[in-house]
Amino acid sequence: MSTQQAHPTLLIPGPIEFDDAVLQSMSHYSSLRRNSLYAAQALPIYLFHFLTPQPGDEVLVLHTGYFADSFADCFETYGVKPTQLKVKIGERPLLDEIEKALKEKKYKLITVTHVDTSTGVLSELKKLSELVHRVSPETLVVVDGVCSVGCEEIEFDSWGLDAVITASQKAIGCPAGLSISYYSGRAIESFKARKTPPGSYFASFKNWLPIMQNYEAKKPSYFATPSPQLIHALHTSLTQILSIPLSERFAKHKATSQKIKKAVADLGLKQLAPNPADQANGMTAIYLPEGVKAAELLPNLVKKGVIFAGGLHKEIATKYVRVGHMGVSVMDEGRGDVEKAIEALGTGLKEVGYEKA
Amino acid sequence: MSTQQAHPTLLIPGPIEFDDAVLQSMSHYSSLRRNSLYAAQALPIYLFHFLTPQPGDEVLVLHTGYFADSFADCFETYGVKPTQLKVKIGERPLLDEIEKALKEKKYKLITVTHVDTSTGVLSELKKLSELVHRVSPETLVVVDGVCSVGCEEIEFDSWGLDAVITASQKAIGCPAGLSISYYSGRAIESFKARKTPPGSYFASFKNWLPIMQNYEAKKPSYFATPSPQLIHALHTSLTQILSIPLSERFAKHKATSQKIKKAVADLGLKQLAPNPADQANGMTAIYLPEGVKAAELLPNLVKKGVIFAGGLHKEIATKYVRVGHMGVSVMDEGRGDVEKAIEALGTGLKEVGYEKA
Repeated sequence: MSTQQAHPTLLIPGPIEFDDAVLQSMSHYSSLRRNSLYAAQALPIYLFHFLTPQPGDEVLVLHTGYFADSFADCFETYGVKPTQLKVKIGERPLLDEIEKALKEKKYKLITVTHVDTSTGVLSELKKLSELVHRVSPETLVVVDGVCSVGCEEIEFDSWGLDAVITASQKAIGCPAGLSISYYSGRAIESFKARKTPPGSYFASFKNWLPIMQNYEAKKPSYFATPSPQLIHALHTSLTQILSIPLSERFAKHKATSQKIKKAVADLGLKQLAPNPADQANGMTAIYLPEGVKAAELLPNLVKKGVIFAGGLHKEIATKYVRVGHMGVSVMDEGRGDVEKAIEALGTGLKEVGYEKA
Repeated sequence: MSTQQAHPTLLIPGPIEFDDAVLQSMSHYSSLRRNSLYAAQALPIYLFHFLTPQPGDEVLVLHTGYFADSFADCFETYGVKPTQLKVKIGERPLLDEIEKALKEKKYKLITVTHVDTSTGVLSELKKLSELVHRVSPETLVVVDGVCSVGCEEIEFDSWGLDAVITASQKAIGCPAGLSISYYSGRAIESFKARKTPPGSYFASFKNWLPIMQNYEAKKPSYFATPSPQLIHALHTSLTQILSIPLSERFAKHKATSQKIKKAVADLGLKQLAPNPADQANGMTAIYLPEGVKAAELLPNLVKKGVIFAGGLHKEIATKYVRVGHMGVSVMDEGRGDVEKAIEALGTGLKEVGYEKA
């Protein structure tokens, strides 16, 4: 039985609903025996950002919504020159356009938002990475996996990815506060080969690599204080995730996503991403029908016990809403979160005056 | 009764032992009604770093241990030029020396580590700030309060401080993961007047000021995802802290510190900080007696159920140990943490062969 107080079901694209066991792990005392926690994980998990490019470097940013603009802003802050490949809202750059761009200029790295939380657009990583390795083999492939790691298929090594940057609070199912990243050997080499010092103090390989190396060598060392509680909760959620084959987890997210997307279509509503192949499996971004305001619909849904998110893409923020379907809300069917969401959306729309044409 | 599993008492200078109610707050579901949490606080609490100086700016760093070196490293990463005022280990720069330094050059800001966790040295803020305002009124007074906020007296406004930067996991008594900072109006103005764009993306007023302004205006806005669980736990611990006069809290930390320091002296041991006025009230750094190794003593103490920290100051790291006495270990006498620490230190030293001369 849940020890959590009754509360409206949080169905936004992160933070998500968390499993009881994970939340209870948060209330663990501070343990300094972090080694045992780390060692229990099969995956290399390191907690910092990726800042390989040097000032003046050119990078190619594939734009599928808000988070590409964030990537570009971030690069500009550090003197790196982003070129954005933009498309219409709900679409993603085509491989042909990307190939053309890669041939026009030498890019230090290319970034792709695997799932853009602002639009629900899913990018295709495998073919993209093949293309980059073929056309511009020195360009690093950097993936924003914030809304995809844990609910979308990613094969880091076999797809030849160089960096996947994610966070704890979405499909990984651990409360917000951890930045979790994966890097290829050549990404690390690229960092080591840089000629200018890193432009960030905290989010820097320079300060964290020695800590990781000492960790591997079982030597104590210090740069900054981690959060034992968050790491404890992460350990619990990763243990749960790895308790069944990942393929099952991804299939379940896909099936649940299909169910929600069918309900949306049955209501006569359209998604931001019109092409099924470009639709995320952990969230759905839905255009509101003519005359329905998010400011009316969302509070109505809260009264029914479910929380959806408003729009985030600047140009159309008031015209759509977003539903998250990741983690326990998908994997623990007994909670009934998804049915509750579908039911609430249908009756909620009716109550604010919408009738299917 | 505590719901925490039995565990060795963590008596290091942070992270510290946490109150049950605070830890239980961590296992709270993600609530988006953060407004109610914030609004309950009397203090303006904003979660980011301070990066006012521009590349080329000169800053004066008062050195009392490891964390001044960190401050200097951090400034250099962003192109700012630190001048360190160094002293012997266990001491702090005298006001006369600081006055001389301030008269020699124009500094954009001066930094002081209120309590340096590596040495247990307490700096005097009130007279320091008076001096800076008198001699170099345009210089901003920036305080590293990581090991002092919540256990040492600080009067932000009346002492004329411009920034106090702290973290959640020490005397504030909330698990690690929040950076909590206070800024004066003139610090904000100084940021706004800068001519070069800020050198950091995440830790930047440029990205957070609009969020804070929208928050005050009750308008939704987004830059990055905060951790509702940590903020919930912070709310619980601040509510506890503010449930009695702060003066009582500080007096209790002082009295407990005196008790520990007397026990240390009674054992014939010396502190890194020889001058009582320079000794922190939330931690004690103790030189090991000749022939006693930290690598022997610390595991022996763990067997007795208490965890002390080893040395952190590079030059003498193996020659001393550190005891933290902050938060619930001090305020909740029923736990007996302090007596346990004193008892364990005495018998532990005997068991590794030390006898008082």
